[in-house]
Amino acid sequence: MSEQTNDFTQWYLQTVQQAELMSYSPVRGSIIFRPDGFELWEHIQEEFNRFLKAEGIRNAYFPMLIPKSFFMKEADHIEGFAPELPWVTEVGDEKLEEPLALRPTSETMIGSAFSDWINSYRDLPYEINQWANVFRWEKKTLPFLRTSEFLWQEGHTAHADEEDARRRTMRVLDEYARLCEEFLAIPVYKGQKTPSERFAGAVDTYSIEAMMKDGKAVQAGTSHYMGTKFAEAFEINYLNKENKHVPTHTTSWGVSTRLLGSLIMTHGDENGLVFPPTVAPTQIVMMPVGPWKKNPAIMEKLDALYAHFKAQGYRVRLDDTDNSPGYKFHEWELKGACIRIECGPRDLENGHVMTKIRDIDGKVAVSFDELDAYIATELEKMPTRLLENARKRNQENEYTSIETLDELKAHIETCKQENRPTGFVLIGWDGSEETEAKIKEETGFTTRNIPFDVPVEKTVDLVNGSSAKHTVWIARAY
Amino acid sequence: MSEQTNDFTQWYLQTVQQAELMSYSPVRGSIIFRPDGFELWEHIQEEFNRFLKAEGIRNAYFPMLIPKSFFMKEADHIEGFAPELPWVTEVGDEKLEEPLALRPTSETMIGSAFSDWINSYRDLPYEINQWANVFRWEKKTLPFLRTSEFLWQEGHTAHADEEDARRRTMRVLDEYARLCEEFLAIPVYKGQKTPSERFAGAVDTYSIEAMMKDGKAVQAGTSHYMGTKFAEAFEINYLNKENKHVPTHTTSWGVSTRLLGSLIMTHGDENGLVFPPTVAPTQIVMMPVGPWKKNPAIMEKLDALYAHFKAQGYRVRLDDTDNSPGYKFHEWELKGACIRIECGPRDLENGHVMTKIRDIDGKVAVSFDELDAYIATELEKMPTRLLENARKRNQENEYTSIETLDELKAHIETCKQENRPTGFVLIGWDGSEETEAKIKEETGFTTRNIPFDVPVEKTVDLVNGSSAKHTVWIARAY
Repeated sequence: MSEQTNDFTQWYLQTVQQAELMSYSPVRGSIIFRPDGFELWEHIQEEFNRFLKAEGIRNAYFPMLIPKSFFMKEADHIEGFAPELPWVTEVGDEKLEEPLALRPTSETMIGSAFSDWINSYRDLPYEINQWANVFRWEKKTLPFLRTSEFLWQEGHTAHADEEDARRRTMRVLDEYARLCEEFLAIPVYKGQKTPSERFAGAVDTYSIEAMMKDGKAVQAGTSHYMGTKFAEAFEINYLNKENKHVPTHTTSWGVSTRLLGSLIMTHGDENGLVFPPTVAPTQIVMMPVGPWKKNPAIMEKLDALYAHFKAQGYRVRLDDTDNSPGYKFHEWELKGACIRIECGPRDLENGHVMTKIRDIDGKVAVSFDELDAYIATELEKMPTRLLENARKRNQENEYTSIETLDELKAHIETCKQENRPTGFVLIGWDGSEETEAKIKEETGFTTRNIPFDVPVEKTVDLVNGSSAKHTVWIARAY
Repeated sequence: MSEQTNDFTQWYLQTVQQAELMSYSPVRGSIIFRPDGFELWEHIQEEFNRFLKAEGIRNAYFPMLIPKSFFMKEADHIEGFAPELPWVTEVGDEKLEEPLALRPTSETMIGSAFSDWINSYRDLPYEINQWANVFRWEKKTLPFLRTSEFLWQEGHTAHADEEDARRRTMRVLDEYARLCEEFLAIPVYKGQKTPSERFAGAVDTYSIEAMMKDGKAVQAGTSHYMGTKFAEAFEINYLNKENKHVPTHTTSWGVSTRLLGSLIMTHGDENGLVFPPTVAPTQIVMMPVGPWKKNPAIMEKLDALYAHFKAQGYRVRLDDTDNSPGYKFHEWELKGACIRIECGPRDLENGHVMTKIRDIDGKVAVSFDELDAYIATELEKMPTRLLENARKRNQENEYTSIETLDELKAHIETCKQENRPTGFVLIGWDGSEETEAKIKEETGFTTRNIPFDVPVEKTVDLVNGSSAKHTVWIARAY
């Protein structure tokens, strides 16, 4: 495996394949989510469904094929998505009258349905979520982070007024941040996207941005306030209390299987995957060591422990293959099992097992009596530790005192020479697209977001020294 | 609403829309699964996932777009599916070099992956399931039962030998039958499909068939033994214990959102939907009656009960709208709520509520003290009662003594005159495609399956009086 610090991308590509999270498919930029990869997504789904249920937002399912005419109704929307849309033009050997796009997102399809379903203020807010496959034919692809077909949830809501719609936009953004930080142990930066990075057709787009181990950014989730733009294009109107037909205010928001890429790039190490137990496909892996085949009592003990852990709901595996212990250690570290339990003849004699926590060096002997409590405690502690470690690393890679484009270039050069991440850079921005474009052109950095929580207020635009309107995080991004 | 017995199809179409299970979409033959409709599917998913987990079969996700060349590898397969395949031919405004089909099923894509993943007998059996959207552009469509896009699970497994593959094929068929009967209260007929009704490319196809209230059949689930046909087309080989490369034996099996149509057509009545509580989106609906607005104690009591039921995990709703009790009764019967609880001033005084079980006539007063036990018992009893009622109705609509095509035609004529279902007819069959075709042409009846459990052994072919090879259920089908 490539060393993580030398070639992060190679490390990533090798790890996700060797650990059997994904395989390439014969269709350009599409991947196969193998069981361990898909299971990560299933746990994220369960967790987010709990939020939806608590909020009274119900799941539905809408057709994947969207008529071309639907896309034409909202001008910004079609302009943003047109180059990436796959089109169904034929069925069997007959040409369709109207081409159908594979959905890149469902504002148009769901907007059209909302228009039928919403009549009066009594129907509002109207809030729906969909788990679905979506398609965006990107030029450059990377497993999980940028694929032609990906999986996501997309929430769509309609509200009586701006205030209620904005409340929903923010409430979901907060939940995305909680999902990343508490559930996935990925620290995020919450803020507002600049106009050039807005969702096609949105009034305001908010995002959570995560910093990968190599200092690059991943936009991990977005929440959009659409104003009445989609409502006007799709006639999502309602009869208000004054008996007038007025447009609703709509929102949409989504997280996708990009989160899997973020998980891997946030926690993975030289030995492979590291997952918090909240999502790890294998929380506990057990294996016999030493001359265990001559000692049937060892497997009896491990079988009993396996049944015991399974009954408690742990995701546990017992590796009783003929592979060597070294091979097994390697394999289960690669796959990101949270705790390894070894048991050999001497361990059995001493009434204990040897344990190894994936992200902590060294083994610890734990007596059979104390094993339950030990495992519960360690699995409990792991997400917080992973989050804190990632947060600490992020802080080391945040640069808040770069004032000019030359200083940014110098920073990039230094990082290159010292082989360390360029990280997130906080800059002053005059609010113009020109300066954003210049930064991108000359450094490859893009604006991530205007943080809600500004570490240092920047007063001068990075490019032209004029007065800054906003303080913005910029970074290279996946 | 149309009367069920007069025009069953109209009753069905009106009910699924008025009860808000689905809406039509702008794409031909595609429907929108509204929240109550989608929730039925979610409960089926949860239940079948429990089976998969217990069997050690893991979920994965494969690309939806399948290159044309993949389809060409198995001749029967492409011949069977070609006319119904939607093709992506363009992305943005560029033409693709090779057209990509929207998957109608994933044998080819998964076969190709299995070929990479499976090496030795140690890897077998290799068993995967996928929950996905699939596409078959059918000429005639009907919500849930036949739609251009539908949702399903498709299991795909590879085995070392025929015996193991056939064991898997049958094990899943048994689980499908259990899922239908115990979970959905839909009685089914298990058996083998005739060669003309086999899955395109299968060696043997087995099905469960369900009889709807109007006597027509729904093929509710299928399980296929593929022999080595797909393994040979996609090189799904393995190194056996004798160190030889040999093809695996594969299976596939699926149930789809057709099950939702079967549920509705099995249990629904003149007043609308009837669901067993296992899948019902609303298990308990509560409503205040009488002059409840003047009696705040009524809503206090109902709010407390609501919280109480919710905490116990029931799917409960409290209808405190201004609609009249009559309107509410109608609406919640239409939507298939299992138990209705009414509480008015006099009920409160008497320390009870009035309850109504969806599929039983008349109301029952239940004291607050006994309500918990009453609800638990009634919800427990409901699936068995629904299953028994459906089974009884099926038995009334089974015809096992029709010996000739003329007798079948006479039966159809009588049923028409008496406005009753033509049902399932058990016939003798000589095993030829010609007789199957003739029956279909002259009566619209198709062979459903050769039942495992033959009620009466038939000795003479229905059409030509020659010696029968098989005893077969035939029926009109959705």
